[in-house]
Amino acid sequence: MTQLTRRTLLAGAAAAALCPQFEISPARAAAPLAGKQAGSIYRYKVGAFECTSLNDGGALVPYFDGFVRNASKEQVIAAMEAAYYPKDRFVFPFNPQLINTGSKLVLIDTGNGPAGGPSKNPNVGRLMESLTLAGIDPKAVDTVIISHIHYDHYLGLRTADGGLAFPNAEIKVPAIDWAFWMNDENMSKATEPVKSWFGMARKTFDGLANKVIKYESGQELAPGITSIHTPGHTPGHMSFSVASGSARVLVQSDVTIVPDFFLRNPDWHVLFDMDPQQAVQTRRKFFDMAAAEKAPVVGYHFHFPAVGYVEKAGTGYRLVPVPWINVL
Amino acid sequence: MTQLTRRTLLAGAAAAALCPQFEISPARAAAPLAGKQAGSIYRYKVGAFECTSLNDGGALVPYFDGFVRNASKEQVIAAMEAAYYPKDRFVFPFNPQLINTGSKLVLIDTGNGPAGGPSKNPNVGRLMESLTLAGIDPKAVDTVIISHIHYDHYLGLRTADGGLAFPNAEIKVPAIDWAFWMNDENMSKATEPVKSWFGMARKTFDGLANKVIKYESGQELAPGITSIHTPGHTPGHMSFSVASGSARVLVQSDVTIVPDFFLRNPDWHVLFDMDPQQAVQTRRKFFDMAAAEKAPVVGYHFHFPAVGYVEKAGTGYRLVPVPWINVL
Repeated sequence: MTQLTRRTLLAGAAAAALCPQFEISPARAAAPLAGKQAGSIYRYKVGAFECTSLNDGGALVPYFDGFVRNASKEQVIAAMEAAYYPKDRFVFPFNPQLINTGSKLVLIDTGNGPAGGPSKNPNVGRLMESLTLAGIDPKAVDTVIISHIHYDHYLGLRTADGGLAFPNAEIKVPAIDWAFWMNDENMSKATEPVKSWFGMARKTFDGLANKVIKYESGQELAPGITSIHTPGHTPGHMSFSVASGSARVLVQSDVTIVPDFFLRNPDWHVLFDMDPQQAVQTRRKFFDMAAAEKAPVVGYHFHFPAVGYVEKAGTGYRLVPVPWINVL
Repeated sequence: MTQLTRRTLLAGAAAAALCPQFEISPARAAAPLAGKQAGSIYRYKVGAFECTSLNDGGALVPYFDGFVRNASKEQVIAAMEAAYYPKDRFVFPFNPQLINTGSKLVLIDTGNGPAGGPSKNPNVGRLMESLTLAGIDPKAVDTVIISHIHYDHYLGLRTADGGLAFPNAEIKVPAIDWAFWMNDENMSKATEPVKSWFGMARKTFDGLANKVIKYESGQELAPGITSIHTPGHTPGHMSFSVASGSARVLVQSDVTIVPDFFLRNPDWHVLFDMDPQQAVQTRRKFFDMAAAEKAPVVGYHFHFPAVGYVEKAGTGYRLVPVPWINVL
């Protein structure tokens, strides 16, 4: 049958040779290739709250030694293959969460922004595009909560010209992280790459010291949204319980980065965990809780839509991505 | 800390009582709830081809006996719980695929259309919205391939006023299914619900008998897109190999419906399998091939983005959803 089609095509070519109008009038052009991933947003309900997973894009990072500090290249490559990653590339996404409580519009983390995004990587820093898709004006955001002071979570606070991306929002930052990253002695002792992270934090939060609201663990930051101290990744790293009625979702921020590595192998240390031993303890405690409660878990670096359920599996855990629900 | 916040809120209420301007100027209204799932599209490359998974929406169907003909209610409910479905609801999505070969724009299946969609269920029949999100004018589609003559795959051929939704496209339909569904004797023998399916097919394809191109198995329907006869679900049910360079994706159409049931339990019979024994044989043969080849598989009723990898697991198979890749 394939051959028959080829013959038909050849017949078509012969007809074109005989009929000049086929050459004058070219075949209708196909639609151009889009060449980039579509804007990606996903809505889910938590009780009366309407939440939106807003993809800020992501990167395909070539494999490098040291991304996982305490696993062999063979082990890491095997994990990548088991998750069907493109060959020798880490799939590394960023997923801020928007929570509409009905009375407040709350954004948890802000993505890479113009500073960390398009100029360096056209596939990153797409939060504003996702917000537009969601029909949200950045001016309508009431509260921005930063989970921890790592640049991919806060650079989006600033517009390209250095203004505030969410001009009407209060900005809430973990008090412990604020104290750590604004401490000059800590900065002077830091080596790369952490040294550069201090620089980005200072630049982004410049002039905001009095505006930023520093928060502690166990604090209700917006209606139904409560902070949970989950240290290790950074000293003041925070996760969140988002609860409405009898429903709740656990926003785990960076308790684990991509689940294919650090949920399957919770004892692995990712480059970005500043106290890796503490990060492992936090991770196991957090996911034991999530698995027991069967609460949905949102991960900033989980694959979009970044919502799933955690189950114990062997010596680690397994993420069951939420089935994409078309109905709210 | 929560208590402290409550006290702060109470203090705020007291301040409002004292300062009349708080009452005159109400709190800024939060953004309204969207109330529906966002339009959902996902792009993926197959060699030089750019493919787009276009969600047509989906339904949450209350559990009913007989959806799975040969499994107990307890077995089905257990499968739903293992996949974290909303309580006692089937998650049932529809995902046509658009393939831009660079020279041709090809649509595989058309969703529920206005006839099967919005008037009955606002969450269904959203293909045109997804196409708009993808930046595609329906007039630009060169070829529409129908995998089989079940209404959720072809009703989208028609606009609300009965016109052709893809006016410039050739329409390709499996010859075996065409012969089956256009046979008056078959129709006269049919009982509900199949009887109504005949009616919908006749209405949709009315006046198109000469326009529709009937295709066979193993035929190249568009560059790189070859039909594979996978009978059982319907007599002429077709899947597709979509190949470019050394890459290929298997578009399995309805070889299995939602994978949580029929991939995990390939011997289960779904209501819609017209020859369930043959459907089981086809399913096992197809997924043995897909698992051995490690080719990505697209399922019309897989959860969006509806692309994954199939692995053998126990007596059945497991679907590993593709990690959402942000980079094309």
